[in-house]
Amino acid sequence: MTGTKTDRATAIIARCREIAAHTEVPGEITRLFLTPPMHSVHSLLRQWMESVRMAVHIDAIGNLRGRWGTANSPRLIIGSHLDTVPNAGAFDGVLGVVLGIAIIEELQGRSLPFSIEVIGFSEEEGVRFSKPFLGSLAVVGNLDDADTLKRTDQNGISISDAIRAYGLNPRDLPEAVLSKDTFAYLEFHIEQGPVLESEELSLGIVEGLVGQTRMQFLFVGQANHAGTTPMNLRHDAMAAAAEWIVAVEEYANSHEGLVATVGKLEASPGAGNVIAGAVKASLDVRHADDQTRHNTVTALTQSATKAGAKRGVQVTTRTEMEQPAVPLDPHLTTTLHNAAAKAGFPTRRMTSGAGHDAMIIAPTIPSAMLFLRSPGGLSHHPDESVLPQDVEAALATAMEFLSQLSDDRTKDDHA
Amino acid sequence: MTGTKTDRATAIIARCREIAAHTEVPGEITRLFLTPPMHSVHSLLRQWMESVRMAVHIDAIGNLRGRWGTANSPRLIIGSHLDTVPNAGAFDGVLGVVLGIAIIEELQGRSLPFSIEVIGFSEEEGVRFSKPFLGSLAVVGNLDDADTLKRTDQNGISISDAIRAYGLNPRDLPEAVLSKDTFAYLEFHIEQGPVLESEELSLGIVEGLVGQTRMQFLFVGQANHAGTTPMNLRHDAMAAAAEWIVAVEEYANSHEGLVATVGKLEASPGAGNVIAGAVKASLDVRHADDQTRHNTVTALTQSATKAGAKRGVQVTTRTEMEQPAVPLDPHLTTTLHNAAAKAGFPTRRMTSGAGHDAMIIAPTIPSAMLFLRSPGGLSHHPDESVLPQDVEAALATAMEFLSQLSDDRTKDDHA
Repeated sequence: MTGTKTDRATAIIARCREIAAHTEVPGEITRLFLTPPMHSVHSLLRQWMESVRMAVHIDAIGNLRGRWGTANSPRLIIGSHLDTVPNAGAFDGVLGVVLGIAIIEELQGRSLPFSIEVIGFSEEEGVRFSKPFLGSLAVVGNLDDADTLKRTDQNGISISDAIRAYGLNPRDLPEAVLSKDTFAYLEFHIEQGPVLESEELSLGIVEGLVGQTRMQFLFVGQANHAGTTPMNLRHDAMAAAAEWIVAVEEYANSHEGLVATVGKLEASPGAGNVIAGAVKASLDVRHADDQTRHNTVTALTQSATKAGAKRGVQVTTRTEMEQPAVPLDPHLTTTLHNAAAKAGFPTRRMTSGAGHDAMIIAPTIPSAMLFLRSPGGLSHHPDESVLPQDVEAALATAMEFLSQLSDDRTKDDHA
Repeated sequence: MTGTKTDRATAIIARCREIAAHTEVPGEITRLFLTPPMHSVHSLLRQWMESVRMAVHIDAIGNLRGRWGTANSPRLIIGSHLDTVPNAGAFDGVLGVVLGIAIIEELQGRSLPFSIEVIGFSEEEGVRFSKPFLGSLAVVGNLDDADTLKRTDQNGISISDAIRAYGLNPRDLPEAVLSKDTFAYLEFHIEQGPVLESEELSLGIVEGLVGQTRMQFLFVGQANHAGTTPMNLRHDAMAAAAEWIVAVEEYANSHEGLVATVGKLEASPGAGNVIAGAVKASLDVRHADDQTRHNTVTALTQSATKAGAKRGVQVTTRTEMEQPAVPLDPHLTTTLHNAAAKAGFPTRRMTSGAGHDAMIIAPTIPSAMLFLRSPGGLSHHPDESVLPQDVEAALATAMEFLSQLSDDRTKDDHA
């Protein structure tokens, strides 16, 4: 993988596409946690890792781990995930792992005052066991409770069973935990959104991952005949829900960095000639600041109640998920920002609206994350792509980041 | 069925409930066009009709027809329907037929300058063949086209087949058409709405039946990640549809006599964490004035386009049904209004928001229609009911109406 920068970027993209061919479903990219194609992906990556002098092993949750550098030196982790959603694209997750190996290739013949471990996490998407981040949870030691390991997939196979079927042993999970000498985590990931593209930027510096609340709003009015019930005698759950959805959008529009979405709505009885008696609607609220998110939920619950009260429609809510925001390490993030600038790439600081392995690692290990532009904002889709120039930019930024980290650590040693 | 007024009302209600026991589905009231339980309903009604000296026959579409009075005298029709929706109540349709027979019972020993034909229409709800009003269409001669008779139910049985299976002959349909001596049509029906109850009235005088437009509105934006897509880069079909639904309600609220309803909404992909890429929503608009209805459709189409344009969401519409308003006969309607007043019952003039057999008959025969209060506004529901005092009021009004009609016709004869 030597050659010009463009050659390297093209090779990285080609490797992602080569991995994409290992799928459970021919003709699409579907590779769930510890399914058979993961074996061949591991073989392929192991081969690439070993060709650049990495020591490779697979831990007890099925994370592929390759280490480069002196065994006893402090450790930088570069990681992302190798599983996919059903009918996925070729870059979500995989790109971060392949870039990690490409960085090690760039480092051949050089030495650093720390070692680098590249991790291909076995599970991040949460598809097979309806629980995401299994790979990164294991490396921070948060996958040890028996209940989690007993979770079953749709065929009744438990996580423990799946681990054993892959040739691993759940008893070895404690050994998967990151060693104490780990000083930093770096993740490359496609943005999966339209922001960088809209600003014509290759790269984004992630400052933190948003907190998220998912709720269900239930509007209960009264189903009635659409012809014989005058407007003033209606209790129209659809109209109440609609007024609320408009309020949700308005509220998010007027609060910086906030996103709020009603993506799902079920009306019953759901006939064109019957006034809706009940409407069930989802609410997804995300913001980097937890207090802002909590205030939003309070305000939007009040909006719903108000829209209901005007129409004699009762509103009840249920919180289905509640996840605090995760800030990334300010020092590492600034280092990454400066590295990109030094490599010649303007960036923007941004918040990740989606969850990533960095979210799990960051509370334990100082973490930084670099986003690569997503053409068309597209991901979780076969047309998901990445531009060679952006891959070049990421690689150049990574090399500057490593230099900066080396300087920092050398200074630390001499201090 | 002699006795006090209350006894008579109680007996009429009991007869409706007796008919309700004849159902395709034990435990609920479901009686579609020409299904086996219609045979036993016909037997029961024939027996009641013959006990009050009516000449009974079943016409070629399966309408039960009983005539009272001199064969060559002009004819007043009192009719409603005997079929039901699935899991129906006991009074929608049936009450109008049973009341017709009760009126004849009241007339025993008296003579009128006209005869009365009570018709129990075989089909009004449109359930079995997805085409309503088969019974009344036949009596006005609008069921003669071969295409209609070839329509099939969900078992592939055509209307012609069903007629033959019931022991009738489609070739006899021309004989079902109302004779030229028919001078008026009167229909009693439960309101199926909350207006009379909200005004504490037993009876309503129907002036006309609303025209109706049913449409589908399709909002096409762009599905996207609810976390990674900032508000300003969204094309949220749900938000556009919601703004439009609020506009629909506002427009109808501000136009007298107008009802407009969005009862059905389907969002896709329909996940809580994905911005809706497309929303399909129904629109049902009804008004007694066709021009008002057309103006409404134009205005609401513009509202949708405007709500879409703000968000980069395309809007297309499709008209699925378009039915003009049907006025009832002003003179007969006033006669009915005066009859109720003379019988001691205040009424309100009103528009029917639902379709009824009177809608089909009125363009051919001068027609009037009397609504009875629907407790709770409930119909098409097992709990559908009618109050004995309202049945008494309807019966008393009918007798006054017949007196007035007799006076009118006697005057006409002497003029």
